[in-house]
Amino acid sequence: MTTDFSHHFSERARQMKASDVRELLKLLQMPDMISFAGGLPSAETFPVEIIKDIVKDVLERNGDQILQYGITEGYAPLRESIASRMASKGMDVTTDNILVVSGSQQVIDLAGKVFINPKDTIVVSAPTYLAALTGFNTYQASYEAIPIDDQNMRMDIFEERMKKLAGEGNHPKLVYVLPNFQNPSGVTMPTRNRKRLVDMASEYDFVILEDDPYGELRYVGDHLPALKTFDDEGRVIFTSTFSKVLAPGLRVGWAVADPGILKKMIIAKQSTDVCTSVLGQAIAHEYMVRKHMDRQIEHIKKVYGEKLRLMLDAMHEFVPDSIRWTKPEGGMFLWATLPDGMQSPDLLEKALKRKIAFVSGKAFFPNPSDGFSTMRLNFTYPSNEKITEGIRRLGEVIHGELGHR
Amino acid sequence: MTTDFSHHFSERARQMKASDVRELLKLLQMPDMISFAGGLPSAETFPVEIIKDIVKDVLERNGDQILQYGITEGYAPLRESIASRMASKGMDVTTDNILVVSGSQQVIDLAGKVFINPKDTIVVSAPTYLAALTGFNTYQASYEAIPIDDQNMRMDIFEERMKKLAGEGNHPKLVYVLPNFQNPSGVTMPTRNRKRLVDMASEYDFVILEDDPYGELRYVGDHLPALKTFDDEGRVIFTSTFSKVLAPGLRVGWAVADPGILKKMIIAKQSTDVCTSVLGQAIAHEYMVRKHMDRQIEHIKKVYGEKLRLMLDAMHEFVPDSIRWTKPEGGMFLWATLPDGMQSPDLLEKALKRKIAFVSGKAFFPNPSDGFSTMRLNFTYPSNEKITEGIRRLGEVIHGELGHR
Repeated sequence: MTTDFSHHFSERARQMKASDVRELLKLLQMPDMISFAGGLPSAETFPVEIIKDIVKDVLERNGDQILQYGITEGYAPLRESIASRMASKGMDVTTDNILVVSGSQQVIDLAGKVFINPKDTIVVSAPTYLAALTGFNTYQASYEAIPIDDQNMRMDIFEERMKKLAGEGNHPKLVYVLPNFQNPSGVTMPTRNRKRLVDMASEYDFVILEDDPYGELRYVGDHLPALKTFDDEGRVIFTSTFSKVLAPGLRVGWAVADPGILKKMIIAKQSTDVCTSVLGQAIAHEYMVRKHMDRQIEHIKKVYGEKLRLMLDAMHEFVPDSIRWTKPEGGMFLWATLPDGMQSPDLLEKALKRKIAFVSGKAFFPNPSDGFSTMRLNFTYPSNEKITEGIRRLGEVIHGELGHR
Repeated sequence: MTTDFSHHFSERARQMKASDVRELLKLLQMPDMISFAGGLPSAETFPVEIIKDIVKDVLERNGDQILQYGITEGYAPLRESIASRMASKGMDVTTDNILVVSGSQQVIDLAGKVFINPKDTIVVSAPTYLAALTGFNTYQASYEAIPIDDQNMRMDIFEERMKKLAGEGNHPKLVYVLPNFQNPSGVTMPTRNRKRLVDMASEYDFVILEDDPYGELRYVGDHLPALKTFDDEGRVIFTSTFSKVLAPGLRVGWAVADPGILKKMIIAKQSTDVCTSVLGQAIAHEYMVRKHMDRQIEHIKKVYGEKLRLMLDAMHEFVPDSIRWTKPEGGMFLWATLPDGMQSPDLLEKALKRKIAFVSGKAFFPNPSDGFSTMRLNFTYPSNEKITEGIRRLGEVIHGELGHR
């Protein structure tokens, strides 16, 4: 018997719906599909043999502890090794600033729990990371959406809007940014804008959630300092993950934050999932102790850098000039904007018939009427051959569309 | 520099505070402490060697998949093996009814997300599982607290209260119960009350969250059917975990629910932590495939059953008759009630000086003025010797208290 429970659902649950990306994933199971849709690391980079050795050793040495509940803050040795890695990146932090989480998505959920009341305005770029929007939606946030350009969030517009909101008595408490190789656009915020954003946090009294899953994956140009490195007042919550540089299946990420904020996040995490997989944490720690991390990052950069070059070359060769696209220096995604009037959901429908998948950009905008002329292309998951062939086919589909107009 | 962010915290975060149990855990690090305070399985039961073999094999066979992101619903082979195990316990379920979660605590969080609006009344027993209260508090629930007796929730009082609430126009949508060897009291709900509760769910149109972490850990008497087995209308969300029968450090549990409810929980989980550790899931699945589960449960039952007997014997020998305590048939906890006027927080202070720890029962009541004369004693974590010696010392402390009155 099926019962309708919809009258029992909370307000937040009533507005939950399966994302377009999620629905799309089902199509991707089709054989011969070339998918630029996902956001998956390439499995060819996973250090399977090393992890196998590590698990054997840590279970032999310390199985009783690793298979037991851990404390909510995280496995102590891992917190230390993360703290020292973050310090080496210029952050003024100790172990007390580190919370280990079950993937950095959890930091979005915990920040929502700790900061957002229904209708609170939070500032995001448009486009921004889809699952940050769905995460903040759970806490019934309102959005102030700031457009991006090839320097990530438009700081001039951000300043203007903050002034205007303040004039209206609206003081957003949280600003969410992905400064490096932003998902979905691939664009990066220059250092002067990072400093300016941190200064403004103090000026306007807001907290910044700096989401940095891809910071280590820079294939071109020089590393830029995290917003957190400019943060004298503890206003920046920095989060990153082992998912992109080791393996997502372990579900281990971390947050770096002011202890006063972290304390609330820890209490919230305790009633959310008690603690992060201790086995996963022990693997991540041992991986760093054995000094595999930097070698692995170099390896991944080589593999993904090549894929990015192949995609950019193929775009140049096969995609008509009336399409514009970003030139990421790292990360996993490239973002394309179609000529006026061409709609990415329509294009996707036709592309799927040619066994090409991407994500229509509209999913990444807080305003559901935005982004119809945009698309996100992932270059890390498909093989090198599929990148070139896929973009060739995509070019044909776009040419076909242009011909019909 | 330290900044005060308290004005930015959400309403829910302002009321979050570290639990007494959490604070207590720090004291437990002291050498020679005999702790009946925690809720940890005994590490001596962890099948370290088997897990080591399993990890080696699953990584060799399927490393690329196991280290990758998984789908939110759970690792497909594990969902299947859980569905067939649940079917063998009398539940009418398929894979579509199963959601794998990052420990069963996550089901409490997801149920809160999906069902609870601020001020919604939910029904719990008093006492009940502490981290369910803190989990539901996150969603700003109000509680209707039903007292327990040695048959778990008092059904007569439950019926009376439901009638009264209905008369006031208040229709609780969620009832949270732990029918087997309840945490904290160890008491079990008889079959007729289980049936009655499911019938009432239909009559009063509510959903039941049936939390069953210890159901397999029965040391005395016969297994009783889950509430879920009487559920024709999909009103019961059943949850259990591998934490108590395999290893908590893997963080793998599951929910069994109506697909309409599960769909909302899946969307909520996606923005909470994307998916549960795939490595942990693969270990749990392979553990079942290799038919270790039932053997392991028999082993644990032998170990814990002996510990329970030792604790009951020691209580009988060393603890004065003016104290009453439950006689659990399974699970991990025993619950004691002090004579009128004796307060467990005071007793705990004195016990800690004798290097004995327990949890004052007050933490387990939704009403902060309740439970001062109660205490929870865990018998699974301490060694057999420590159980006897610890209860002996506890008896002395209680005798001392009684002598002073």
